Amino acid sequence: MANKKRIKVSKKAGLPPGALLHVGTQKTQKNSFDLISYNETDLKESTSPDFAQFAQLFKNENVNWVNIDGLHNVELIEKIGKNFNLHPLNIEDILNTQHRPTYEEHDELIFFTMKISGAFENDNVTFENISLVLGKNFVLTFQEKENELFNRIKERLRAHGPVRKRKADYLFYRLVDTIVDNYYVVLDNVSDRLEELETAVYRNPTNQTHHELQYLKKNLITFRKSIYPVREAVAKILKEETSIIDKQTLRYFSDVYDHTIHIAESLETLRDLVTGLSDAYVTNINFRMNEVIKVLTIISTIFMPLTFIVGVYGMNFQFMPELTWKWGYPLIMLFMFFVGIGMVFLMKRKRWI
Amino acid sequence: MANKKRIKVSKKAGLPPGALLHVGTQKTQKNSFDLISYNETDLKESTSPDFAQFAQLFKNENVNWVNIDGLHNVELIEKIGKNFNLHPLNIEDILNTQHRPTYEEHDELIFFTMKISGAFENDNVTFENISLVLGKNFVLTFQEKENELFNRIKERLRAHGPVRKRKADYLFYRLVDTIVDNYYVVLDNVSDRLEELETAVYRNPTNQTHHELQYLKKNLITFRKSIYPVREAVAKILKEETSIIDKQTLRYFSDVYDHTIHIAESLETLRDLVTGLSDAYVTNINFRMNEVIKVLTIISTIFMPLTFIVGVYGMNFQFMPELTWKWGYPLIMLFMFFVGIGMVFLMKRKRWI
Amino acid sequence: MANKKRIKVSKKAGLPPGALLHVGTQKTQKNSFDLISYNETDLKESTSPDFAQFAQLFKNENVNWVNIDGLHNVELIEKIGKNFNLHPLNIEDILNTQHRPTYEEHDELIFFTMKISGAFENDNVTFENISLVLGKNFVLTFQEKENELFNRIKERLRAHGPVRKRKADYLFYRLVDTIVDNYYVVLDNVSDRLEELETAVYRNPTNQTHHELQYLKKNLITFRKSIYPVREAVAKILKEETSIIDKQTLRYFSDVYDHTIHIAESLETLRDLVTGLSDAYVTNINFRMNEVIKVLTIISTIFMPLTFIVGVYGMNFQFMPELTWKWGYPLIMLFMFFVGIGMVFLMKRKRWI
Amino acid sequence: MANKKRIKVSKKAGLPPGALLHVGTQKTQKNSFDLISYNETDLKESTSPDFAQFAQLFKNENVNWVNIDGLHNVELIEKIGKNFNLHPLNIEDILNTQHRPTYEEHDELIFFTMKISGAFENDNVTFENISLVLGKNFVLTFQEKENELFNRIKERLRAHGPVRKRKADYLFYRLVDTIVDNYYVVLDNVSDRLEELETAVYRNPTNQTHHELQYLKKNLITFRKSIYPVREAVAKILKEETSIIDKQTLRYFSDVYDHTIHIAESLETLRDLVTGLSDAYVTNINFRMNEVIKVLTIISTIFMPLTFIVGVYGMNFQFMPELTWKWGYPLIMLFMFFVGIGMVFLMKRKRWI
Amino acid sequence: MANKKRIKVSKKAGLPPGALLHVGTQKTQKNSFDLISYNETDLKESTSPDFAQFAQLFKNENVNWVNIDGLHNVELIEKIGKNFNLHPLNIEDILNTQHRPTYEEHDELIFFTMKISGAFENDNVTFENISLVLGKNFVLTFQEKENELFNRIKERLRAHGPVRKRKADYLFYRLVDTIVDNYYVVLDNVSDRLEELETAVYRNPTNQTHHELQYLKKNLITFRKSIYPVREAVAKILKEETSIIDKQTLRYFSDVYDHTIHIAESLETLRDLVTGLSDAYVTNINFRMNEVIKVLTIISTIFMPLTFIVGVYGMNFQFMPELTWKWGYPLIMLFMFFVGIGMVFLMKRKRWI
Repeated sequence: MANKKRIKVSKKAGLPPGALLHVGTQKTQKNSFDLISYNETDLKESTSPDFAQFAQLFKNENVNWVNIDGLHNVELIEKIGKNFNLHPLNIEDILNTQHRPTYEEHDELIFFTMKISGAFENDNVTFENISLVLGKNFVLTFQEKENELFNRIKERLRAHGPVRKRKADYLFYRLVDTIVDNYYVVLDNVSDRLEELETAVYRNPTNQTHHELQYLKKNLITFRKSIYPVREAVAKILKEETSIIDKQTLRYFSDVYDHTIHIAESLETLRDLVTGLSDAYVTNINFRMNEVIKVLTIISTIFMPLTFIVGVYGMNFQFMPELTWKWGYPLIMLFMFFVGIGMVFLMKRKRWI
Repeated sequence: MANKKRIKVSKKAGLPPGALLHVGTQKTQKNSFDLISYNETDLKESTSPDFAQFAQLFKNENVNWVNIDGLHNVELIEKIGKNFNLHPLNIEDILNTQHRPTYEEHDELIFFTMKISGAFENDNVTFENISLVLGKNFVLTFQEKENELFNRIKERLRAHGPVRKRKADYLFYRLVDTIVDNYYVVLDNVSDRLEELETAVYRNPTNQTHHELQYLKKNLITFRKSIYPVREAVAKILKEETSIIDKQTLRYFSDVYDHTIHIAESLETLRDLVTGLSDAYVTNINFRMNEVIKVLTIISTIFMPLTFIVGVYGMNFQFMPELTWKWGYPLIMLFMFFVGIGMVFLMKRKRWI
Repeated sequence: MANKKRIKVSKKAGLPPGALLHVGTQKTQKNSFDLISYNETDLKESTSPDFAQFAQLFKNENVNWVNIDGLHNVELIEKIGKNFNLHPLNIEDILNTQHRPTYEEHDELIFFTMKISGAFENDNVTFENISLVLGKNFVLTFQEKENELFNRIKERLRAHGPVRKRKADYLFYRLVDTIVDNYYVVLDNVSDRLEELETAVYRNPTNQTHHELQYLKKNLITFRKSIYPVREAVAKILKEETSIIDKQTLRYFSDVYDHTIHIAESLETLRDLVTGLSDAYVTNINFRMNEVIKVLTIISTIFMPLTFIVGVYGMNFQFMPELTWKWGYPLIMLFMFFVGIGMVFLMKRKRWI
Repeated sequence: MANKKRIKVSKKAGLPPGALLHVGTQKTQKNSFDLISYNETDLKESTSPDFAQFAQLFKNENVNWVNIDGLHNVELIEKIGKNFNLHPLNIEDILNTQHRPTYEEHDELIFFTMKISGAFENDNVTFENISLVLGKNFVLTFQEKENELFNRIKERLRAHGPVRKRKADYLFYRLVDTIVDNYYVVLDNVSDRLEELETAVYRNPTNQTHHELQYLKKNLITFRKSIYPVREAVAKILKEETSIIDKQTLRYFSDVYDHTIHIAESLETLRDLVTGLSDAYVTNINFRMNEVIKVLTIISTIFMPLTFIVGVYGMNFQFMPELTWKWGYPLIMLFMFFVGIGMVFLMKRKRWI
Repeated sequence: MANKKRIKVSKKAGLPPGALLHVGTQKTQKNSFDLISYNETDLKESTSPDFAQFAQLFKNENVNWVNIDGLHNVELIEKIGKNFNLHPLNIEDILNTQHRPTYEEHDELIFFTMKISGAFENDNVTFENISLVLGKNFVLTFQEKENELFNRIKERLRAHGPVRKRKADYLFYRLVDTIVDNYYVVLDNVSDRLEELETAVYRNPTNQTHHELQYLKKNLITFRKSIYPVREAVAKILKEETSIIDKQTLRYFSDVYDHTIHIAESLETLRDLVTGLSDAYVTNINFRMNEVIKVLTIISTIFMPLTFIVGVYGMNFQFMPELTWKWGYPLIMLFMFFVGIGMVFLMKRKRWI
């Protein structure tokens, strides 16, 4: 969990609900927004328009997609929010990147915040917040920073893809679907990493291996915190059957819902596997300790009695008849040889060797 | 979990929902489909027909079973799908072999994907995807590769079995029932394997044993992931009471439902048993380590004091009266004998020997 | 879990639903059935009647109890089943002794399979399958073998007990109640056994003790698998309020329901206790290992330095002044005595002794 | 769990439901009952009346509280039960002290069994069964033995407390409330005991400490078994809104319900704490073993090489030049001193010392 | 858990429900209360008024906020409670600082008790009880001691903040929101502390570290006990849609509800992390023990055989030819050197070094 950020959440304690504050780290320098306005035959696009331009481009009969990258420009976001009649609390939610994924239905609007999964690097998944707003003829997306994820959709829009024939709700679906599908990439990476760690645990377990397993587990916990509320949110979309989303599009959301369940189940499985590996590591360590102690005991059991025997004949008593025997030395060596053999034999019977 | 496959699932991220892509490994070379068209008196069968033949064979007043083996021929599957009015997302689901078992009801169709359990070899169960489509007078089955499981049903059809008197919904039931019953074979294999491992854990636990237990556990987790959604799906069939499935046939599905519950419960039990065995293994290792350390301590406790004593009389001091005594050597030997006996006695009292 | 039996269940995979096959081991040689037909004033009884006699004895105005011991006579059971209009799947369930306890309501019939707990011997509980069928004026019971459990009820019937005044539904209740109450006997045995094991764990834990605990746990899991579905089934009886069971009799079933809950809770408690004991065993083993290692360390800490000192004066250097001192030997002995005392003192401070 | 008693429960198996049998140990010699009949202005009290007297004292226009101590007088309880129209199964429940706390509503009666917690002595909580029956104008209480808990209420009744102004339902509430509040006493004792054990675990953990923790855990499990059904029962009172309990009194029961939830949550917390302590004990034992083994290794690492060196110069070879050197002895002592220092230094770097 | 206080809760056992008793420790000397009466244009404030003054200041057309610090003045609280028509049980709840957070709706009043989180010092979070009462035109707050948390709200009220334009329900929301947001501060502190402990566990684990982890876990349990009922309570506010809280204000409570869920989830995550760390500590200890034992075994394996060999040549037999060889001493030293090297080589192969 990124503590540095959350400290900022706690800083909001005591502020009135209307207070707008960007909670999170500034991840981009960009300070502006894009607008794509399209219908089946026509598409107009503008990067970083000013507000006057914006009003011109936005067409009520088109589907309008306004995408904002970077949340540190509080003023801009407030202006856009008010322009589209967002509730003050929703504008606050957009700015708070620690917000829990949530779905809200208003009269003419749907408000949906969720997390975009970034790359899985160094056993770490980064998540970014995204807020989506769906209205009758527009979709607003507020991201922490520019993201390549949506480029494909933009390209398809420009390339007269089938999205162009549909309404704003279908664009909204495509965006949510793209974000959800992207979780599979992380799942695959995690599961590849797990196989690496599995080999390490059974072949060459070090303290580092366990550390990495713990770290992976920690990340899976964070991942779950991101995906579970998304599942709930999509379930809500399906259940509440708002008028803004067409019934036909709703059919697609039931597919998204299946994916979120599948991801959640896979996460649970991965977590079980990590826990299993963690247990296997401990058992392995125990087993190796057992082996080491066995060796110690074998060595001690053989040499302690022998060392005692040679000690006996190292004593300086004047009257020790054996010492003067001619065959004393070879006999005692032979005797010790049999003692040693006997010990090995005994331990073989106990299945230690 | 077969990671190699899932990587392909993540490759779909970003593609539009209509994009048809076979997710999974190609398991058969077969490139065609079978059709069995029957009623009480008549049965016609054709392997690998072309589409023209197909139209001739398919009879509306009969029950028509179209079986497709191999999912890599995307074009063929799309053609069949469109012919039977499948939803584009369902065609996509048929091709995606990583799809979660699911059940969907449409106006004139029931769509059901589930997993066929393969053999239990090397502690591993393989699962194959199967999609079933039930219409008024037809059943479509899409399998990853040819499977002997359905041969029995085909034989019974040819042999004028009672299935011939029933409608398509009964054929559909027989197929689902056959797949579910087949899980029992795996359950039996797993539970036989578990008995082997139990003997190993209590008789001769090695690191390998634990590894195998972990592997079995992992497979049970995958198994559960396959059977739980089937249970939910069958529950949905029972609850939604579609018109395509006759009430009388529904009665049989409540029997299938009982089986899925029984399998799920048995899986849970098996999992509890594996976990218990895993714990027993660890405890056993601990117990053995304890035994080994006891031996080490016994040996040390007896020989360390004795070695010290003989060391004393190995010192080279000029004035050590004992060394010149005539009975010094036998006396010290006797003394050490009693020290040894005393130690053994002490340890007997502590119940170590 | 009795694997040998379950193999047979898996053998049914692929058979049509109508196929009648006795799943389980043949537990009795008996090949016939009993009939008791009674009303308040009259009781007629017949053991092993043929079918003609049977028709004569069975009286519609009486309560008729047909009890079949032994399920290997598939033909007889099918004949009886058909005579009483049982659904083919129910006849199949009667023959399948691995069937999960289940409750089904038909128009004129109630079908109920459950498990009779046998004796608790060698930490093992055996369970037998029983199927009960309740009709307007009859009760059918199908058991794997003869059972003394119902003798009491038979005696009371003959002795003009209050059951005689009631209808078939009350007889049905009495049978279910008797079976459920019998579970308490097993619970008591298990809990007595647990006290024995508790003593063993704390007084004299051996590897055997742990093995027995694991075995007990395994049996409790099987037990739970038998009782949980019974609880669900009785809950269903209470909820669905069928017309075949009188409201007054239903009141008694709510008492049975309380018992099943009580048994289920006691089972959970017993399981928690077994788990707790299992943990205590491990901790105890650890604690003992700690004690053993302490002794080893104490012995080593005292004698290793002393053995080194005597070794020093066992060296054969020509110029070692101490060796020629008159008091050298007694002084070094005194020195070693103080070293030993010092070590003991140190360890006392560390609270090892 | 008191096994001795439960054996008796299992003895009931096979008996008809009407059979009255006192299940439990006889805890009192008392053989009679008390009656307090009061209204706002008047209170009459009688200890151990005979049945004739009883009929005279009982007044329909008053609130009548009949309290029975001791359940071994089966005949008396049956007589009272029949007098107040109790259902035969309820009379059976009153006599069965192992009965699960339960709540039942009849037409004119409420029947409620629960457990009174006794003192917490020797890490053991005793629970006694109590059955309460509420009718329009009477409350019956059946206890295993005399209990001081109700004396306060009796005193307040005699002292014209506000209870006098209320109906029977309020007396019923006061009795239940007193019993529930009494659980807090046990909770406090348990939590005090837990602090003692916590100190023991961290300061001076012995095998006894763990034994006591396990015992405490076992008792908390029993405690939970007593309180959870009470919570359910009170929830039922609130939900079913019977006419026998006034709406105003119901308000007080929602307070009782809050208490039962609070107690249940505190129990869960205590259980978590005991589990945590139990883990801490194991970890502590492990940590100490680690410390002990470290000492063993340190001693061995220092003295084994030194003992080897002095052994070398204890060999009796004729040609060992060092032995004849004048400074041989002091040089070798210096050498061994540096070897020892070096070892200590190495271990300091490994942070063992 | 503060046992000292809870003892006092158990002291209430047996008292009648009306009995007013301050349960908890007296945390302030203050003996009076504040009143802020405001509307959009006007605000009047009074600290520690007497009751006469109070009546004058309280204006029905204004929003009146009465804040009481310190609960030991039972008489005052009773007087205020009666003045605002509180139910006797609620007055009791106000005084009982161990009360579980709860929410109650009455005809004209809402009663809400919850916990204010104090500072996180020495791994300990203190919680104070607060009771809030919302009426048509007033809010009452009863705190254990003065708290800076509300000063911000007071300042904003005086500074003509937007709260001034709203009704009492909005003030009520602002108070609850402030308390809930304050939990984030504790969450942040706990999560910072956890990072410290994580470093300690992996770098330098001592018994103290584990002790602190356990302590933190214990505190998280207490924390959860405080926040979970608050979540339920807020859910109740949202569901029951009382007329006292305006629909517009209710929208804000759904925001508070999101926060309580987020806090609860974060708590669960923190608890998982603490458990994970605790496991990592144990594994780490085991791993280190393994390392130490390896060193012991290496030392023993090398020096025990060598010490035996030098012992052999320390024996005093008269006929030991090697002793008289000229090169005997160097040869045996060379031999021992190779034995030592061989041992090291063997252990390298076993990957111990």
